[in-house]
Amino acid sequence: SIGLNVYYHTVVGDNPQRVRDAVDIAKKRADIIITTGGLGPTCDDLTKVVLAEAFGKKMVFHQESADRITEYFTKRNLLHMMTDNNLQQAMLPEDCTLLVNDWGTAPGCAFFAEDTHVIMLPGPPSECKPMFYHRAVPYLAQLSEGIILSTTLKFFGIGESKLEDSLRERMNTMQNPTLAPYAKTGECELRVTAKAATREEAEALLAPEVEKLQEQFGNLIYGVDVTCFEEAVLKLLVEHGVTLATAESCTGGLIGKRITDLSGSSKGYLGGVIAYSNEVKEKVLGVDSAILEEFGAVSEQTAIAMAEGVRKLLGADIAIATTGVAGPDLDDRGNEVGTVYIAIATAEGTHVRHKDLGNHRDRVRILAGHHGFDLVRRYLNKIPYDN
Amino acid sequence: SIGLNVYYHTVVGDNPQRVRDAVDIAKKRADIIITTGGLGPTCDDLTKVVLAEAFGKKMVFHQESADRITEYFTKRNLLHMMTDNNLQQAMLPEDCTLLVNDWGTAPGCAFFAEDTHVIMLPGPPSECKPMFYHRAVPYLAQLSEGIILSTTLKFFGIGESKLEDSLRERMNTMQNPTLAPYAKTGECELRVTAKAATREEAEALLAPEVEKLQEQFGNLIYGVDVTCFEEAVLKLLVEHGVTLATAESCTGGLIGKRITDLSGSSKGYLGGVIAYSNEVKEKVLGVDSAILEEFGAVSEQTAIAMAEGVRKLLGADIAIATTGVAGPDLDDRGNEVGTVYIAIATAEGTHVRHKDLGNHRDRVRILAGHHGFDLVRRYLNKIPYDN
Repeated sequence: SIGLNVYYHTVVGDNPQRVRDAVDIAKKRADIIITTGGLGPTCDDLTKVVLAEAFGKKMVFHQESADRITEYFTKRNLLHMMTDNNLQQAMLPEDCTLLVNDWGTAPGCAFFAEDTHVIMLPGPPSECKPMFYHRAVPYLAQLSEGIILSTTLKFFGIGESKLEDSLRERMNTMQNPTLAPYAKTGECELRVTAKAATREEAEALLAPEVEKLQEQFGNLIYGVDVTCFEEAVLKLLVEHGVTLATAESCTGGLIGKRITDLSGSSKGYLGGVIAYSNEVKEKVLGVDSAILEEFGAVSEQTAIAMAEGVRKLLGADIAIATTGVAGPDLDDRGNEVGTVYIAIATAEGTHVRHKDLGNHRDRVRILAGHHGFDLVRRYLNKIPYDN
Repeated sequence: SIGLNVYYHTVVGDNPQRVRDAVDIAKKRADIIITTGGLGPTCDDLTKVVLAEAFGKKMVFHQESADRITEYFTKRNLLHMMTDNNLQQAMLPEDCTLLVNDWGTAPGCAFFAEDTHVIMLPGPPSECKPMFYHRAVPYLAQLSEGIILSTTLKFFGIGESKLEDSLRERMNTMQNPTLAPYAKTGECELRVTAKAATREEAEALLAPEVEKLQEQFGNLIYGVDVTCFEEAVLKLLVEHGVTLATAESCTGGLIGKRITDLSGSSKGYLGGVIAYSNEVKEKVLGVDSAILEEFGAVSEQTAIAMAEGVRKLLGADIAIATTGVAGPDLDDRGNEVGTVYIAIATAEGTHVRHKDLGNHRDRVRILAGHHGFDLVRRYLNKIPYDN
């Protein structure tokens, strides 16, 4: 979105010569090199030294950084755990711009040499991500002319190849904006991207295209510019002022986890029951033992009873329930791996979906969650549960 | 483990020239090139064509693959969703070895040309991973001399830099086996790697080193050659023939999700309650409203009541509970982000840990889970809850 194209990404182990080779290749083909990792306190963290060498720079001690590192350990009552290694992080290439690290001990840095901008960020994702957004992006934004703006449409219920098939002709003739489909686990997305001199011009290019796509695909689009299905659902719950509860068997807490990944999820999510064993389904959710005996845990009837049970137990407006065979083994009734029932219970009644979600455990569980979220957004948007 | 060193990893977008450039660089420095992605049915999936060109090979139609693709759609009652794009996946470089894809529609393939082995695998992780293990590894194993064997020790309660600090001298002098520390979220691991002509010789090199490390670090090692903390805990539960229940507030289902990620988790895990709201803590877990009023939801007392409540409710041998402030906002009592209480309830009593887990939401939640698992393995291994 700051107008820079990312063309290459290279990963190389902690070997000085191979890191150096990767840097030399990058120098030839890129205007900007961003490195992550190798700023840490251990011996194999050598990126900084190699980058300095590759651009003919000396390493110098940076007192301010040393002070910040000491302060970091002091504030956390961890000074006894600080070692000389930690202070090694304060050695930086000469004449660099310091990128202060408020999320860990290793400072980042940036310099311009041999017509190349070099930016070094720490490796751990919890430091790398905020350092990128709050340090590298502002630094890079000043280098760029024009902007690239994207809008992402999220689809559920259509595969990537079918999606592209129905867009092929338009995609081949479009120049600006452009369309790019991406497959994700059990869902796919379409990124519409425009380049322009200003944000307003880029937005004006995007708007009519997004509208056209919404007309074409209708209910298959579950969200625009949301990062994930659970975010789209949480937004809807908050907008409608309603609460959600979950009863999870085969997903084992995954749906609750996904919703509570989002900050602010307590505004729409009350909680739920992980009913992994039949005893929990009976004792906590009140699923009738006769249902479990007659139809089994993996059945339409059990899914319905779980959803209605947890809705009542938690006093929620909406409840979803999952029960199925995530694999790799069949269940004791011989249900195939991938057989899943997903139910939604509301004041207006209960609906259940029966799906065969394939034979890959992680995928079965993620898709079961997607289907639960799909039922909730269809209920709240007053569109049919099934297209 | 099949004796091949992995030196470089490159990611490049769906642009023919840049893919070609990346392949040309790889040809110069590697004996084996493995590609993932670009075998799919969409227009931007072009890796196969570029690889064929780079090695002077024609593309030919492979009838057997076309039949398999048609069969894949037929079996899933999805024939109406099959498009010409899907059949494009049956075009393969001439004289290649077909790598049959039992996990999706795009076949992989391998060929040897210009002294380089080329292996192409599909991109989606649910296909790429089994294709790698079941197709590429057997193909590669025959090329390799000798073997590389690793044992991984998993640590909780010690940081990477402290770990390396206490091993520095040994690491600098060791040749075979070697030691390499890695930081993970809230934990770290140490990989001990030996090279030898046979598996037996490599094992003989590893064993004394692993023993030495276990003596040195004792209770800080939670597992050897386990993929994650939850796996180590599930193994212990099954070995001891005991059951676990969870009561999760700030982790919101993450602990249940992590355990049920593992197939066979029903052997040790009954389920739990996601008590995200106070109402659920009270109504379902039976936490006394007086406790919630006097001490708040984020307190030692609430954590204890949650653990004891879910243990009783589900009839489990062991229960763990989490309550805390995952962030980004403080709670209504002004508890700092990162304040978490983790309790364990057993027949022998209840114990609670109070931790400040930092200010990064995802990390706070993952670490709260680690602490829960740490309490369980310490209880079952009869080692003190706190070192």
